[in-house]
Amino acid sequence: MPSPKVYGETAQDDGRRAVEACFGQDFDLGQPGRSGWMASERSPYGVELGVRYPVCDGQALIDAAHAAMPGWQRIGAQGRAGVCLEILEAVAYAYREMKFIPHETVWEKPQGKNPPLKMKKHFEIVGRGVALVIGCGTFPTWNTYPGLFAALATGNPVIVKPHQNAILPAAITVRIAREVLAEAGLDPNLVTLAAFDKHEATQALATHPAVKSIDFTGGNAFGQWLISNAKQAQVYAELAGVNNVVIESTDQYKAMLRNLAFTLCLYSGQMCTTTQAILVPADGIDTDQGRKSYDEVCADLATSIDKFLADPAVATAVLGAIQSPDTLARIAEAPAHGRVVRASTKIEHAEFPGAEVRSPLLLACDAADEKAYMEERFGPSPSSSRSPTARGGDLSERIVRESALTVGLYTTKPEVVDAMTEATWRAGVALSINLTGGVFVNQSAGFSDYHGVGMNPAANASLSDSAFVANRFRVVQRRHHVE
Amino acid sequence: MPSPKVYGETAQDDGRRAVEACFGQDFDLGQPGRSGWMASERSPYGVELGVRYPVCDGQALIDAAHAAMPGWQRIGAQGRAGVCLEILEAVAYAYREMKFIPHETVWEKPQGKNPPLKMKKHFEIVGRGVALVIGCGTFPTWNTYPGLFAALATGNPVIVKPHQNAILPAAITVRIAREVLAEAGLDPNLVTLAAFDKHEATQALATHPAVKSIDFTGGNAFGQWLISNAKQAQVYAELAGVNNVVIESTDQYKAMLRNLAFTLCLYSGQMCTTTQAILVPADGIDTDQGRKSYDEVCADLATSIDKFLADPAVATAVLGAIQSPDTLARIAEAPAHGRVVRASTKIEHAEFPGAEVRSPLLLACDAADEKAYMEERFGPSPSSSRSPTARGGDLSERIVRESALTVGLYTTKPEVVDAMTEATWRAGVALSINLTGGVFVNQSAGFSDYHGVGMNPAANASLSDSAFVANRFRVVQRRHHVE
Repeated sequence: MPSPKVYGETAQDDGRRAVEACFGQDFDLGQPGRSGWMASERSPYGVELGVRYPVCDGQALIDAAHAAMPGWQRIGAQGRAGVCLEILEAVAYAYREMKFIPHETVWEKPQGKNPPLKMKKHFEIVGRGVALVIGCGTFPTWNTYPGLFAALATGNPVIVKPHQNAILPAAITVRIAREVLAEAGLDPNLVTLAAFDKHEATQALATHPAVKSIDFTGGNAFGQWLISNAKQAQVYAELAGVNNVVIESTDQYKAMLRNLAFTLCLYSGQMCTTTQAILVPADGIDTDQGRKSYDEVCADLATSIDKFLADPAVATAVLGAIQSPDTLARIAEAPAHGRVVRASTKIEHAEFPGAEVRSPLLLACDAADEKAYMEERFGPSPSSSRSPTARGGDLSERIVRESALTVGLYTTKPEVVDAMTEATWRAGVALSINLTGGVFVNQSAGFSDYHGVGMNPAANASLSDSAFVANRFRVVQRRHHVE
Repeated sequence: MPSPKVYGETAQDDGRRAVEACFGQDFDLGQPGRSGWMASERSPYGVELGVRYPVCDGQALIDAAHAAMPGWQRIGAQGRAGVCLEILEAVAYAYREMKFIPHETVWEKPQGKNPPLKMKKHFEIVGRGVALVIGCGTFPTWNTYPGLFAALATGNPVIVKPHQNAILPAAITVRIAREVLAEAGLDPNLVTLAAFDKHEATQALATHPAVKSIDFTGGNAFGQWLISNAKQAQVYAELAGVNNVVIESTDQYKAMLRNLAFTLCLYSGQMCTTTQAILVPADGIDTDQGRKSYDEVCADLATSIDKFLADPAVATAVLGAIQSPDTLARIAEAPAHGRVVRASTKIEHAEFPGAEVRSPLLLACDAADEKAYMEERFGPSPSSSRSPTARGGDLSERIVRESALTVGLYTTKPEVVDAMTEATWRAGVALSINLTGGVFVNQSAGFSDYHGVGMNPAANASLSDSAFVANRFRVVQRRHHVE
């Protein structure tokens, strides 16, 4: 929903028409090695898409990528950053790291009374090779762009392999990238789309000796498969985890519940950052509205969700639609894992009758029942665990060490904040403290939050630090005498 | 041999006395988990050493390292850089990368007519965990310090595992580091020495789940073992390769031969950067002294080595001594791999009668006989390969793709320089062009050469780029509302 003030009054209609113009058409990209067409996307809103994408041979894409590389290297860090800026703006880190490398220097070594030795040294920034970016089904742009631009800006051709049910946003991006590259007189095969209809084709590409880096966002199973099998490549994996919130006490009970309700509803919990476990002491919490028992906290959170979703227009806008049949299945089987505090309901979408909209399901369980909440379950079925008093922080740390991207904390006690802060340093997770307003634990701000820490199994990289770009290129030097 | 002008007239004697004072003594470091003492070092100069080092349990060192970590994190990037500066100066890259991370910031999000959302965000630099630095037998300091300081300065405790025959330099370094740390009020167990008398102990430590990074310099066999087996750690490996020099033509024939002779003699070729194959066209080369046949080039290079080593004092100073019995064995078996152009000779050392000093052996072979030169053979036994005209550059590139750290080129033709430059960009190796003076292909200048490129199997990292430090720490953030 683009803001009319920022993007113009007709932006929403324009965007919709532009997307609908793609429906039922071939999405041609002028890529080499095309063996056929595929149309695999299924809209969670029940809209017929029928966009057909070129299925290209992986080896042909790699060959084309190699052929495109020297010209990309030749225009240098500044040229590449300029071209990438025309595609998108997120190349600042890559540019900074490359700018540290001097283009050339004259080196002198004193020789006592004799004239100094003088050498000219040239330093060439060389991309490490073909980059593969594997997108996910729920965030096809947000989660594809960091790897795409980090790899491209540092000198590497990029093959974009979108999720088979979220190809269009990637295909549009690839098309624009190819247009900008061609306009700049560069080989458009620096960016290609690998729309594969066979999972084996993705696996073959990921383990191809020429593929030197892989950016992956998605489920833990394929992420771990990539880390274990694509040993020829540097793998940057953003997976998922049991994000958790520790409630120790609060002086803003209602605002806390409102904040948590929004987090659990936003995009039906289909975010790698959404809270999956809420840890509440078994003997309850102190609040500005008096002592609240564990059961009261659970019930009040359920009520808060109900209130938030009372207006169907708000509900459908915030919940979005369930992207995958797997997630629908997880909602269906969730009641087996605990006591249902709030059941998931199907919500009709006024505009899209086929949309699969679901409200969150809320479970209660004992902290001792670890299998109820220790396993990551993507989607809107979080658990609220009853943990022994004062054990919330320890339990949270243990969960994070298994895998987590976000942790929240509610407390009125500075010493609890300090202890939790140190726990998150040890386990490696971003901490949000006492969120009661319009910021939510599952949201990362683009230029001031380190999304993904890269210290626990939920992610082996952050998307916004030097490590994310510095290892994607090498410096090849040459030197010779000068007078 | 310290310069008397720079280090004082008595520096050499002072240094010798300081080392001799260690002989036959326990080298105590006050480390935990000591199970015994070992004295494994054997001097290549035939000097009795008998220094006894504490053998400590790897798990005890890891436990002590973990206990030391929070205090190290607490003093921050500036504090760590300061302490490291007192131990050594090579921490600039690590400091630069850490300084990019703001300590804290206030973030505002406009809310239309309402007051903006304001959050305070804190960013903590957290070392990824225990670092293991595995030294080599020939360069126990130069090759240990980059990893040691990169890991330490970025927040990680470091366990130094020296080569069992080159412990003393590492032990002295560790002792100084521990003294400086303790003086700064920090836990000295941030730097410990792991003097192991069993190879299995090194393997167990390298694959320990708590070890998060490994810096290794040494042979390809153990380096590849580490890369394949220490999957829990980021491995920074500097191995060895078939460094090569392509001679296409020269306008300084004598100076070229002098330069190559010095390279082959320096430290008896026991450097990971020493030339192992010299590629000369089968039909000879153009020089300022007329056309020279392949055999003439070989013979003239041998004569140049003879002349350079004619003065025994120069010879012993430049050659050093053969560090390992394995290298002596490789010299003995080298004649099997080609035609001996110059035989290796044993040279008596005036001061150290037990020193194993050897002059370089020079072999001639055909380029087609790949097994003669394609395999890395550490030590002073390079091959001069007769390659079909104009194929030198292609062959060099193929060798580099297998593994190489340095390449040299002699040519008078700019187009050959250009072609070779592009070949080194593709294969990833540092190129030295027409070295005829006091700079040698096997030497890297500390602050202006990118030692190790990290693009071919000879090394998976450079010692002097952002990638060497940026992945050793993570940023853990926390955020909360502010008014």
